[in-house]
Amino acid sequence: MAGNSFGTLFKLTTFGESHGEAIGGVIDGCPSGIELDFEAIQHELSRRKPGQSTLVSQRKEHDEVEFLSGIFEGKTTGTPIGFIIKNKDQKSSDYDTLKDTYRPSHADFVYEKKYGIRDYRGGGRSSARETVSRVVAGAIAKQVIKNIQINAFVSSVGTIFIDKPYQALDFSLIESNAVRCPDVLIAQKMEQYIKELKKEGDTVGGTITCVIQNVPIGLGEPVFDKLHAEIGKAVLSINAVKGIEFGSGFCGAQMKGSEHNDLHNVDGETITNLSGGIQGGISNGMDIYFRVAFKPVATVLKKQQVLTNKGELIEQQGKGRHDPCVVPRAVPIVEAMVALVLADYYLIHKKYKG
Amino acid sequence: MAGNSFGTLFKLTTFGESHGEAIGGVIDGCPSGIELDFEAIQHELSRRKPGQSTLVSQRKEHDEVEFLSGIFEGKTTGTPIGFIIKNKDQKSSDYDTLKDTYRPSHADFVYEKKYGIRDYRGGGRSSARETVSRVVAGAIAKQVIKNIQINAFVSSVGTIFIDKPYQALDFSLIESNAVRCPDVLIAQKMEQYIKELKKEGDTVGGTITCVIQNVPIGLGEPVFDKLHAEIGKAVLSINAVKGIEFGSGFCGAQMKGSEHNDLHNVDGETITNLSGGIQGGISNGMDIYFRVAFKPVATVLKKQQVLTNKGELIEQQGKGRHDPCVVPRAVPIVEAMVALVLADYYLIHKKYKG
Amino acid sequence: MAGNSFGTLFKLTTFGESHGEAIGGVIDGCPSGIELDFEAIQHELSRRKPGQSTLVSQRKEHDEVEFLSGIFEGKTTGTPIGFIIKNKDQKSSDYDTLKDTYRPSHADFVYEKKYGIRDYRGGGRSSARETVSRVVAGAIAKQVIKNIQINAFVSSVGTIFIDKPYQALDFSLIESNAVRCPDVLIAQKMEQYIKELKKEGDTVGGTITCVIQNVPIGLGEPVFDKLHAEIGKAVLSINAVKGIEFGSGFCGAQMKGSEHNDLHNVDGETITNLSGGIQGGISNGMDIYFRVAFKPVATVLKKQQVLTNKGELIEQQGKGRHDPCVVPRAVPIVEAMVALVLADYYLIHKKYKG
Amino acid sequence: MAGNSFGTLFKLTTFGESHGEAIGGVIDGCPSGIELDFEAIQHELSRRKPGQSTLVSQRKEHDEVEFLSGIFEGKTTGTPIGFIIKNKDQKSSDYDTLKDTYRPSHADFVYEKKYGIRDYRGGGRSSARETVSRVVAGAIAKQVIKNIQINAFVSSVGTIFIDKPYQALDFSLIESNAVRCPDVLIAQKMEQYIKELKKEGDTVGGTITCVIQNVPIGLGEPVFDKLHAEIGKAVLSINAVKGIEFGSGFCGAQMKGSEHNDLHNVDGETITNLSGGIQGGISNGMDIYFRVAFKPVATVLKKQQVLTNKGELIEQQGKGRHDPCVVPRAVPIVEAMVALVLADYYLIHKKYKG
Repeated sequence: MAGNSFGTLFKLTTFGESHGEAIGGVIDGCPSGIELDFEAIQHELSRRKPGQSTLVSQRKEHDEVEFLSGIFEGKTTGTPIGFIIKNKDQKSSDYDTLKDTYRPSHADFVYEKKYGIRDYRGGGRSSARETVSRVVAGAIAKQVIKNIQINAFVSSVGTIFIDKPYQALDFSLIESNAVRCPDVLIAQKMEQYIKELKKEGDTVGGTITCVIQNVPIGLGEPVFDKLHAEIGKAVLSINAVKGIEFGSGFCGAQMKGSEHNDLHNVDGETITNLSGGIQGGISNGMDIYFRVAFKPVATVLKKQQVLTNKGELIEQQGKGRHDPCVVPRAVPIVEAMVALVLADYYLIHKKYKG
Repeated sequence: MAGNSFGTLFKLTTFGESHGEAIGGVIDGCPSGIELDFEAIQHELSRRKPGQSTLVSQRKEHDEVEFLSGIFEGKTTGTPIGFIIKNKDQKSSDYDTLKDTYRPSHADFVYEKKYGIRDYRGGGRSSARETVSRVVAGAIAKQVIKNIQINAFVSSVGTIFIDKPYQALDFSLIESNAVRCPDVLIAQKMEQYIKELKKEGDTVGGTITCVIQNVPIGLGEPVFDKLHAEIGKAVLSINAVKGIEFGSGFCGAQMKGSEHNDLHNVDGETITNLSGGIQGGISNGMDIYFRVAFKPVATVLKKQQVLTNKGELIEQQGKGRHDPCVVPRAVPIVEAMVALVLADYYLIHKKYKG
Repeated sequence: MAGNSFGTLFKLTTFGESHGEAIGGVIDGCPSGIELDFEAIQHELSRRKPGQSTLVSQRKEHDEVEFLSGIFEGKTTGTPIGFIIKNKDQKSSDYDTLKDTYRPSHADFVYEKKYGIRDYRGGGRSSARETVSRVVAGAIAKQVIKNIQINAFVSSVGTIFIDKPYQALDFSLIESNAVRCPDVLIAQKMEQYIKELKKEGDTVGGTITCVIQNVPIGLGEPVFDKLHAEIGKAVLSINAVKGIEFGSGFCGAQMKGSEHNDLHNVDGETITNLSGGIQGGISNGMDIYFRVAFKPVATVLKKQQVLTNKGELIEQQGKGRHDPCVVPRAVPIVEAMVALVLADYYLIHKKYKG
Repeated sequence: MAGNSFGTLFKLTTFGESHGEAIGGVIDGCPSGIELDFEAIQHELSRRKPGQSTLVSQRKEHDEVEFLSGIFEGKTTGTPIGFIIKNKDQKSSDYDTLKDTYRPSHADFVYEKKYGIRDYRGGGRSSARETVSRVVAGAIAKQVIKNIQINAFVSSVGTIFIDKPYQALDFSLIESNAVRCPDVLIAQKMEQYIKELKKEGDTVGGTITCVIQNVPIGLGEPVFDKLHAEIGKAVLSINAVKGIEFGSGFCGAQMKGSEHNDLHNVDGETITNLSGGIQGGISNGMDIYFRVAFKPVATVLKKQQVLTNKGELIEQQGKGRHDPCVVPRAVPIVEAMVALVLADYYLIHKKYKG
């Protein structure tokens, strides 16, 4: 319980700071004999990396993963898969001003108070750069549970929302635009809005919706390790996430039971799916879907009052190459965390089957 | 990872079905030498039990906890605290009709598919009766972290909402009414609405807001075991919970960074608190607050199409003594889960301090 | 990591003091659908209980297990199995003299120093009475892995040793005598020696050998959770155990590689088995065998210098109904711990199999 | 529970194969603010590496550790410490013959059966090269518990034993000879014997004794996570270990209680220490000592019957640069595992202290 491991049978442990030598991780418990699709892994890294479009940070993170173990002649061997991604495009000098100050709504202050020391360069361990290791592991997890489809997409930026149910969307359009929004007209509005904010040096929050299809019945371990509880933890652990709702979520809290119940058909499917594919913490075979709230990126290129470690308030302006809106790049990260949970629960569930 | 344990250093393991002999649990890792306040524990159980008012289920759960170990002459000894609560007012016959049917939006179907067998009486393990063990352990956890105040309350029932920030509320009024809503005028509206629904045999959802005050700086273990991620898991594992949001939550996802940032004052406090007391997964000393969505109770006393284990659809009406609205009774359960997380993280955090 | 849980997928958590209300435990992760043989469980408890013969303690522990959950109509449901064994024949007054003294080579002193408080009655949590919960869980674990045979027996008492390899013994004779030694002539010598010691008020140590047969190939999780490492931990956690050796053990440490290697035959079996059925931490399908050293029971009915909690030395004589030799009663406990490890590793291993 | 992590609060996760790109690990939970002594870490690696003397393998493992994270300006930051050691002197061609054969008493056979695939080069994950990561982490753990002294040494090689109690030995002489035996006369005999065996192409087993001094009272978490149970697991997980005994160990099993009890003096120390510094699973402040049995190295440079993966028996002779006797190089590995356990238990224990 030192905080940097996730999962039980399919377990990821990560390490690394934004401006250290490298970041990386260890995947322990990956089943043996899987012929890895390395291009698919690299593809997920490319979806996460900065500099993909003018909408996101222009930092260049090459993000080439090097596998150090656990793979032999292209196949997993059942032994731990160690991997690193070297940090290449570090401009630590960008961060010299941060040595003595605590950026508002960043983790600078709490890291210093908790640990008595912090690697201030680029946010150190609290930087979202850490999520690159999650994406590598998630890409492998996806190959463990390959019959399950996980599709996340941007469902809102600021107050611009997709106003259709996910069933009305064409997931093949998610990657057709820089925002990762499958509703292309809404996507254009989002893009334009983000560009305006970028000019202003401001940032904005948004939401991601994730839909998981073709899930076997029975994943989830009551009572504490319910499937949505673990997905909740996984997703809430992503930088900038402030909320999650499954199925009908907060809207469902306004409904009556007679409206909200999902009646079965004779095949054991439910006719409606307000439960969001999970009942009693266990998958029921219907689509699992949830929505995630991301707060706006805290680094704004505007002047703000900032506290120093001498207890003074000074005026400081954010520097560096930051995202005006993080949700487009967070799409593969949400998918990765879901894949990690599902791979773990899938392996755990197998024990119950003769 | 068998699903029925929660926590690492302060760990709760629970067992028990709704209509079995008893339910109970084991608290392992409670520090020694704590002089337990048994009345406080019983008080929490009374807050959770059915039959408190006409608003909630009229089942009589006496809910007297018997401690079997770990306590000597009134003090904790550092050894595991085993406890049971006997199931007394079981009317299993109420559930005979459920033997062969899967109630809509209940866990009946998934338990049968996952395990191949289920104790159908009263929902068995998936019954909310299970939470009584959480409340016992949470009441003890509160005594471990006694300087921290945890106040949960009902913030909405259906579409009736408290429309004030929590800072404008008087927490001493929470227990003044049957709904556990500190805004007494809103509470009356909620009560009336619930009574109407009860007459109709219907149910309704709602939200609970929880405020945690006087939290030391530094609780939380990045990167996966962030404080809000673990609270999120804890709360999402409560029956009927469909969503959680911390601080500005889903509203914050609509805001700009320049509006959302919490600036520090010279004392290291933040002037605003849209972050909700947690930054980078670590408590910053400000109030932690979050909001939880509960779906409506699935058992409605109305006729519904129900699937049988023979694959037929029959018409069935819910029976038994169920809550028309679960949120009033869920208030102490939310507090209990928060207390469990905080006690665990508090003990973990102590290791870093000289 | 609070110390009172064992296992990952098949997990036992125990609680209870020697003279408390009850002791018990929770088995979490037992597969569903197992029709439990309750007589077999009770049989194991009878093998462990005191008062079986004149060789062991004459305390009467009725040791009737009450199952509170996880079982429905005689079958496991996949939910946690809670159980208790009430403490009935407690003579706490026997222990009043111990309130202020630390018995030599007992845990009294360290419990008081570690926790600042202790339940001194009968040794509290440190009493071997705690192992009754292990035996219940082990008896269920045996039913999970029913194709595997686990046979433990007494291989030495003091300096009286069985001088044959286990292959020359008839395991059906283990229960034919009070010492649980399958070599009946040696058993008689052991019995006589124990009776003499009992008269003197003295005690003696001994060893238990355990043989596990029909083990599937592949159990064990390198590198830290090697099969023999986990069995080692399980067995070393039993009261009074001071050592364990697998296969050739300490003798093997004196041998040359050319003598020690186990050559394969064409069927993949090994011709010799000095490795003791485990190579690289993984079972190889051959018999697993190990030997365990138990120190003599510390409570002697003779006068000894004893430290008080005032820092004085007084003369004190052990009281109560203690075993002159613990190994006969420890036989089912060793088997139980082995069964717990094997059930857990068996479930874990299943995940690797298509 | 995927097998490659050890510890709870101070947790090591390792990865890497003998002939892969690199091996390494992640230390999670190391307290912040420790000014690391990098020379001390490198010194431990040098003690473990092959090629130190003519007694051990002549492979050249440079074993330079590269730290990738968790350290800032020479101090630990509380974030995970990732590290790698590149594999440099790999002669994979030495192992080509092993592709299709299962070396006797190696893990080749069981890895292939368990995982269906194996990296046969140098034994892959089952190679003792894996222990280099343990030594790195152990060297850091030693710096966390720096008041505790851990001294391991070779106490026997084959049938050549030190015949003195450890109290009569001068630990400063351990490193004075290539065998790491503090009794220099015995050391000479051991050296000579090992050299003879090397000429013959044979190998031999041996034992290591480890003494831990200045241990605080109270380390250990009953009932399953007793201090010696966890040390037992840690040490049994080292390659080639077949047994462990604490304090009086197997000799104690021959003794009477009246001889074996450790009486206290008025200071709470024990006059004798047959318990080996641990009672009831908790350290009592006296020296902890234990003895470990290592089987002889399985690779002998002699012809043996060897099974192929086609199910044939062929004659094969061991190749490569192997140790005739592993115990001298295992000394720092035993110490490392002990340090890992103690650092973990030390952090856990701190939670109980105000």
